[in-house]
Amino acid sequence: MYFTYEQPRFDVKDENEIRRVIKEAYENGCEAAKQGKVANYIPELAKANPNDFGLCVRSMDGKELSFGQVDKRFSVQSISKVVNLAAALKFLGFRETFSHVQLEPSGDAFNSILKLDTVSDLPFNPMINAGAIQVMGLLTNVMDFEDLLDFARKFMMDDDIVLNESVYRSERDTGDRNRAIVYLLKSKGVLSGDPDKTLDTYFKMCSLNVNAKSLANLGLVLANKGQNPFTGKHLIHPGYVCTIKSLMFTCGLYDESGEYGVLVGIPSKSGVGGGIVASVSERWGIGTYGPALNKKGNSVGGIAALEHMSHLLRLNVFA
Amino acid sequence: MYFTYEQPRFDVKDENEIRRVIKEAYENGCEAAKQGKVANYIPELAKANPNDFGLCVRSMDGKELSFGQVDKRFSVQSISKVVNLAAALKFLGFRETFSHVQLEPSGDAFNSILKLDTVSDLPFNPMINAGAIQVMGLLTNVMDFEDLLDFARKFMMDDDIVLNESVYRSERDTGDRNRAIVYLLKSKGVLSGDPDKTLDTYFKMCSLNVNAKSLANLGLVLANKGQNPFTGKHLIHPGYVCTIKSLMFTCGLYDESGEYGVLVGIPSKSGVGGGIVASVSERWGIGTYGPALNKKGNSVGGIAALEHMSHLLRLNVFA
Amino acid sequence: MYFTYEQPRFDVKDENEIRRVIKEAYENGCEAAKQGKVANYIPELAKANPNDFGLCVRSMDGKELSFGQVDKRFSVQSISKVVNLAAALKFLGFRETFSHVQLEPSGDAFNSILKLDTVSDLPFNPMINAGAIQVMGLLTNVMDFEDLLDFARKFMMDDDIVLNESVYRSERDTGDRNRAIVYLLKSKGVLSGDPDKTLDTYFKMCSLNVNAKSLANLGLVLANKGQNPFTGKHLIHPGYVCTIKSLMFTCGLYDESGEYGVLVGIPSKSGVGGGIVASVSERWGIGTYGPALNKKGNSVGGIAALEHMSHLLRLNVFA
Amino acid sequence: MYFTYEQPRFDVKDENEIRRVIKEAYENGCEAAKQGKVANYIPELAKANPNDFGLCVRSMDGKELSFGQVDKRFSVQSISKVVNLAAALKFLGFRETFSHVQLEPSGDAFNSILKLDTVSDLPFNPMINAGAIQVMGLLTNVMDFEDLLDFARKFMMDDDIVLNESVYRSERDTGDRNRAIVYLLKSKGVLSGDPDKTLDTYFKMCSLNVNAKSLANLGLVLANKGQNPFTGKHLIHPGYVCTIKSLMFTCGLYDESGEYGVLVGIPSKSGVGGGIVASVSERWGIGTYGPALNKKGNSVGGIAALEHMSHLLRLNVFA
Repeated sequence: MYFTYEQPRFDVKDENEIRRVIKEAYENGCEAAKQGKVANYIPELAKANPNDFGLCVRSMDGKELSFGQVDKRFSVQSISKVVNLAAALKFLGFRETFSHVQLEPSGDAFNSILKLDTVSDLPFNPMINAGAIQVMGLLTNVMDFEDLLDFARKFMMDDDIVLNESVYRSERDTGDRNRAIVYLLKSKGVLSGDPDKTLDTYFKMCSLNVNAKSLANLGLVLANKGQNPFTGKHLIHPGYVCTIKSLMFTCGLYDESGEYGVLVGIPSKSGVGGGIVASVSERWGIGTYGPALNKKGNSVGGIAALEHMSHLLRLNVFA
Repeated sequence: MYFTYEQPRFDVKDENEIRRVIKEAYENGCEAAKQGKVANYIPELAKANPNDFGLCVRSMDGKELSFGQVDKRFSVQSISKVVNLAAALKFLGFRETFSHVQLEPSGDAFNSILKLDTVSDLPFNPMINAGAIQVMGLLTNVMDFEDLLDFARKFMMDDDIVLNESVYRSERDTGDRNRAIVYLLKSKGVLSGDPDKTLDTYFKMCSLNVNAKSLANLGLVLANKGQNPFTGKHLIHPGYVCTIKSLMFTCGLYDESGEYGVLVGIPSKSGVGGGIVASVSERWGIGTYGPALNKKGNSVGGIAALEHMSHLLRLNVFA
Repeated sequence: MYFTYEQPRFDVKDENEIRRVIKEAYENGCEAAKQGKVANYIPELAKANPNDFGLCVRSMDGKELSFGQVDKRFSVQSISKVVNLAAALKFLGFRETFSHVQLEPSGDAFNSILKLDTVSDLPFNPMINAGAIQVMGLLTNVMDFEDLLDFARKFMMDDDIVLNESVYRSERDTGDRNRAIVYLLKSKGVLSGDPDKTLDTYFKMCSLNVNAKSLANLGLVLANKGQNPFTGKHLIHPGYVCTIKSLMFTCGLYDESGEYGVLVGIPSKSGVGGGIVASVSERWGIGTYGPALNKKGNSVGGIAALEHMSHLLRLNVFA
Repeated sequence: MYFTYEQPRFDVKDENEIRRVIKEAYENGCEAAKQGKVANYIPELAKANPNDFGLCVRSMDGKELSFGQVDKRFSVQSISKVVNLAAALKFLGFRETFSHVQLEPSGDAFNSILKLDTVSDLPFNPMINAGAIQVMGLLTNVMDFEDLLDFARKFMMDDDIVLNESVYRSERDTGDRNRAIVYLLKSKGVLSGDPDKTLDTYFKMCSLNVNAKSLANLGLVLANKGQNPFTGKHLIHPGYVCTIKSLMFTCGLYDESGEYGVLVGIPSKSGVGGGIVASVSERWGIGTYGPALNKKGNSVGGIAALEHMSHLLRLNVFA
């Protein structure tokens, strides 16, 4: 780990150096992946190859640097929480969204229901399961899964995103903890949607088949304040992008968000499928795929690669 | 509240406009202060005037804009946690410091001991009481209060900072919860220092008499990567400043940090004495004083003023 | 309240005195009921009349003393947990039952899921919702609701017990917290039965229409070591009765069990429908009905009446 | 384990059979002790011999049956909580005592502070550390350690009870968790006594040197409603004895109380020094010494012996 940004630095605008650093980051990610384990609480996820690793960096001018398995499809999992939140902000607005979910890091694991039952009836933030299910409850009142899929495809500039049916079935058949969460929310009178439809749409959005490139695109749209840099199309208001990135920074890597904020310092979101999306404002979208996870449920390869890039290329928002 | 950065914007570099916005921010702060209440869990704090408000903005080139009570002294309280953390990083290093305290937002109140007794023996972060006491335990092994006071004076460019004796006595005489925390840390075998000396120094550092100007100076040193912009003296390594600002962002306003990150988005630290320090990278240090607090223990006037400035002047790190 | 058993005592075997004390107990119960409120978390329960009160005492030789509304039917609610536990012990045995649920007072509210998610995967005891649902999961593998209803009728010597359809529908339609519990148990891999069938049978058993007389009969069977004193039929092994009474003593009145154990000291079980069953070993079964509840969910009239009887007639197991 | 009281039974009044059963109970205790571990959180306790075991049964008529190490002295530890509670009831009364501590089993470990900081400012019961410290705070206002020592000697009919100085120093020097508890109570404004004196007296009372015989005597006084059966002297009101025994039943073996209530069913109190006192109403006092503890902090030998006796001699209050 690089703790202190103490290393001497080259000119961070030298393209050859940048390419070299990103290649090193990829190699670090491959090496680090050996320390992790694939998720096993959803049977379908346990089938992933822990040695897989891919890194894709895309810039505003359309350039792309890719290493390793950037085309391999995997389920987006919790990264869909970013898409869902974006949809809620876009179609329902800030006030409506955040009158149903808070904006605070919870300090608990991604699937915790502890605070929900002791501290507050409203989930702590939209980046943990309880909060994302709550957001989905809202969304189901105004749109269907097909609408959300369409929104996700645009956000990730990837028309090939489809539902991974086997992951979806696996989620649905084993998602009892999420089922407990949706009924707990309902019992507290805070759930907006029908429990079954909410959960079903939530599971489907977790089961979208993406790859590291789609994630890089998602990061790029966020880096470009919600605008697709190639088509010029505005997908979401810049103010909402600001909100999303701030929540990614404070809550995006579950109960590892604070440490990640110090060691990497780029607004990011991870998923237990192995993906991480990172957004370097006005510059890059970054997507990584490495299904070997650490104990907090985050991709070890992805974190290693992003930490290397952040330090050598000064990508930390506070550097 | 401004939720979405949707308002039309003037040129954020026009000095007259900036002055106007900062004056508005001050006025908003004065107005908002009426909604808060002064802290009462330490008798000495209850004596503050809830209508007091002051705002000081200092820039790298030495310019200063001040409104209201910027010279009035008050106790620094939790903002000393930033000074303590800086000292720990400077004199003990990153690894040593963070082998004794974590880097995660806790999701709990500033004086919570819940997680300490259930989830982890190490406090969640240096910005809550348990974590700051743990950091102080480390510091007492290598320096005395006088050394820390000296460091604080330099960090805030303010040689007039002294111990507020009556606040210190009030802290010491009523600080039983912090006393419980120090013994809980000791019982878990994680406290490095002597409990009495640790607590005493912790209470003293909370009782330093600062004003909004000192806080603006502290923010300015952080904005300038740890270097005093006027003397050129390096107070702390830039890498450590990056760490500190990231932790201020994720944990600086207690269990309101996530919302503040979205609505203001500037690395900041609050204290129950009524102060807030904010640091706008490579640009400004901001200090506010408003002892009327909200339920989370943060200055309502300070937040209102900073939110106004952030939105109108685009100071949010993700804007 | 009688704290210390200090009052002078008549001969506790004088039948006229006993009758007088029980009448006083009834009057105390009527008076105390004015301090409580009917349950409102299930709409059907909110329709009860808070001033209703009835007390029925039955002895081994068939004598019965009844005051007030002892024939009025109400839903058995949590008192069915005693019937369910008895059925589990009888048909599945001690080891099998208690390998799926613990025997400890939880210290938490009756519908808490806190410990379930932090301390232990197994519910703390069969007298709180989570534990009773767990027991029901076991039972559904070996018997149907009709079997349980039959068992309940025998246990309460009351063939008129039927399902209260409107309470059952109310339970089912609003039982989202219990639904959350069943899915949480399933997600932890400890639930034995099908979630839907488990919950449905649980709701039905909560919705049995009993009266104070049925409860007195239940208490009498327990007082007679599991044998119907009139038919001589053994309903459940004496060893299991001992287990049930001990758990009623430590866990029978939710998080008021400890105080009730001191102030009353008779193994009892309460339900939010307003009933309390109490069992005085080798002597009496007592049933009370008073839908006005205290904050812990227990009948205030019932407690007042039982406390009076316990003190004046020395019914406390430790007196 | 005997779960169901199913074994055929001899006449439980045959003295030879009783002697045989108690001898078997002793042998079971010796055997079971091999499964436990001596306490290690206080250095002085770690010196105990895990193979030690002693069992003493005393009856109202002065008869005594002793096996193994019944004269060996060990520190009374948590069993002093019974003495302290008795003193509080006797000298301060029921209302005063229980306006400072609750009467509920906590469901948490003996030294937990969890509930204290989340659910309630008042400790859950006088049998856990927080509650016992709270009771001691009350007592220090009306009596000194010497008074309590005198009371303990009378209660245990043992004038040789003295302070074990090395245990006391060990307690005092390592009792940081209890120190945290006392300051937490003080910070909540509920502690009645001076923190230092309260803790010091609490530590001293935990450090009294008793043996299995002293504990049997304590049990006998409780069995005889507070009266020394040999001198006829009334030590405490019968109503208070009833209160104490009820709390021993629901809370006496920490978070194993519920299971112990089912498997043994005699009001008892354990200490981490290895002792257990049990009181069989109007019949016996039982004391056991076996420093090998289970995970909940209770003597495995003591529980095994008491379970054997309870089953074979039908001592369970609900049998």
